[in-house]
Amino acid sequence: MLGPGKAELLELIARTGSISQAGRRMGMSYKRAWMLVETLNSIFVEPLVESSRGGASGGGATLTPAGHAVLKHYRELEAHTARAGAAEIEAIRALLKPPSDMSGEK
Amino acid sequence: MLGPGKAELLELIARTGSISQAGRRMGMSYKRAWMLVETLNSIFVEPLVESSRGGASGGGATLTPAGHAVLKHYRELEAHTARAGAAEIEAIRALLKPPSDMSGEK
Repeated sequence: MLGPGKAELLELIARTGSISQAGRRMGMSYKRAWMLVETLNSIFVEPLVESSRGGASGGGATLTPAGHAVLKHYRELEAHTARAGAAEIEAIRALLKPPSDMSGEK
Repeated sequence: MLGPGKAELLELIARTGSISQAGRRMGMSYKRAWMLVETLNSIFVEPLVESSRGGASGGGATLTPAGHAVLKHYRELEAHTARAGAAEIEAIRALLKPPSDMSGEK
């Protein structure tokens, strides 16, 4: 439903006020950014992003209250799960070969 | 490094004693199951799966102590993060359209 990419896109739209600028900062095409926004707007009960193409303000995009709510819940989800999983992730990481070891062979 | 698929494969190897049977239960080819095991064995300091092809016992596979440890940490990671994220996931889910609504249009 929502992952790191879409969450970042929402955050950048809120910060830049523009879907295309938000997409550009993530290295994605204008078209792809719009498609992701359309997907997000269609899967939630209310749209997450409101946009106007052109008009007096020259067009722009903002998060709706639902958009802000979803983004906030997602960031809290990340923070809580990262904290809750830190010990296990560290335990697994401690068993991994160091990243500099690229041999991969046995 | 490790996700739901590889964790399930490890668990099924432990349960079935066989890489190919474990793979089959996940609907994956013998080759793919072996490749995943080889990847796992190469990225960790110690191999996670020990296997013998043929021999008196007819071949088979078991998790090494490192394999059991990694799987245990991963399951704990899942349990802890699911618990920690439950409230936010529920909050996001409550804002999603019900899954039966496939219209997707605005």
